[in-house]
Amino acid sequence: MSDRLTSLITKTPQEGFELAITLAQMGVEYTQPSESIRKKLRPKYARNADSLIMASHVIAVHYQTVAAANNYWK
Amino acid sequence: MSDRLTSLITKTPQEGFELAITLAQMGVEYTQPSESIRKKLRPKYARNADSLIMASHVIAVHYQTVAAANNYWK
Amino acid sequence: MSDRLTSLITKTPQEGFELAITLAQMGVEYTQPSESIRKKLRPKYARNADSLIMASHVIAVHYQTVAAANNYWK
Amino acid sequence: MSDRLTSLITKTPQEGFELAITLAQMGVEYTQPSESIRKKLRPKYARNADSLIMASHVIAVHYQTVAAANNYWK
Amino acid sequence: MSDRLTSLITKTPQEGFELAITLAQMGVEYTQPSESIRKKLRPKYARNADSLIMASHVIAVHYQTVAAANNYWK
Amino acid sequence: MSDRLTSLITKTPQEGFELAITLAQMGVEYTQPSESIRKKLRPKYARNADSLIMASHVIAVHYQTVAAANNYWK
Repeated sequence: MSDRLTSLITKTPQEGFELAITLAQMGVEYTQPSESIRKKLRPKYARNADSLIMASHVIAVHYQTVAAANNYWK
Repeated sequence: MSDRLTSLITKTPQEGFELAITLAQMGVEYTQPSESIRKKLRPKYARNADSLIMASHVIAVHYQTVAAANNYWK
Repeated sequence: MSDRLTSLITKTPQEGFELAITLAQMGVEYTQPSESIRKKLRPKYARNADSLIMASHVIAVHYQTVAAANNYWK
Repeated sequence: MSDRLTSLITKTPQEGFELAITLAQMGVEYTQPSESIRKKLRPKYARNADSLIMASHVIAVHYQTVAAANNYWK
Repeated sequence: MSDRLTSLITKTPQEGFELAITLAQMGVEYTQPSESIRKKLRPKYARNADSLIMASHVIAVHYQTVAAANNYWK
Repeated sequence: MSDRLTSLITKTPQEGFELAITLAQMGVEYTQPSESIRKKLRPKYARNADSLIMASHVIAVHYQTVAAANNYWK
């Protein structure tokens, strides 16, 4: 993971959103480094509406950060 | 989804709110790309008050971002 | 709902708070457009302390937005 | 409740914190206007650690708003 | 509690973090003023991972406030 | 823990993310100081998707703080 995050600057709001997703995933990966365990958990939470909303929430928090870093792509 | 998000600028606070909803949905869609699975989940969480409040929360976080991007439509 | 939100500017902090409540409700209404379903859910969550705290949380997030839009009514 | 909130400005960080608590309570009161129902709920959630942490969270969000309004009492 | 919070300014990021913890605790104490009840709740939530993460979340929100008040100790 | 946090400034967005993780862990450690209890809790929550998302959320909040402190590494 160590070379994934070199800048918060992105060309478009869309790319910024994808970076926010990456940041949300990084938070999970640092907390549970085992890829095999994470893969086991995925089918369950990806079919649970509340888990999906919670994941969307984390993305939203990171998107605030990325959008501010990019001065909202104005 | 890739061409959905080209700008955070909207004409009105109302359109900004609708963009916040889109962003919240995008977070769910990236986490669960299968439309058929999402459609199955919908009837359940849309009748669960806590899930609705959680969804409204994610929209609120994105609305902060969109409102700031638009300098609060002042 | 489309003509409800024309401005984030309010005269007083109190009116701003009421706007934050409206925004929190709009998030729920967009997610569950059926008024009859929402009315069925209401008696239950309005008697559940955790649901009330969650609803208060969403209002708090929107109030941050509205207060910033109004430069904190200073 | 209508005349409770006339300003976000407070003399001290302590008074600001108390205002944040008031704002968190207002969010609950608008969602459940019945004082008798709220009083019934109180003994239960006030003895539930997670509910207390959630309530503290809402206060924290409002305190961000109040602190910013007061330029952090600097 | 009334004389605990006289300033958000701290010498170091570490002291600011400790202030954020105090603020999170104050939110709980105002909601449940009885020290004996809080002490009874503590053993349980302090051994529940989700409760600990929720407590850490509240501290994080207050730390944003304290860090901004101190201009990030730059 | 007392000498861990001397500055919020980091060289890169990646190091900032690692600092955000440290801050999230500090919040847990202050709330539950016993390392042995925390170690017992870890296997369970690290295999629970919702707990991982919640942990990622706390990291996201701290990352907002760290990123702002570093002016987004621009």
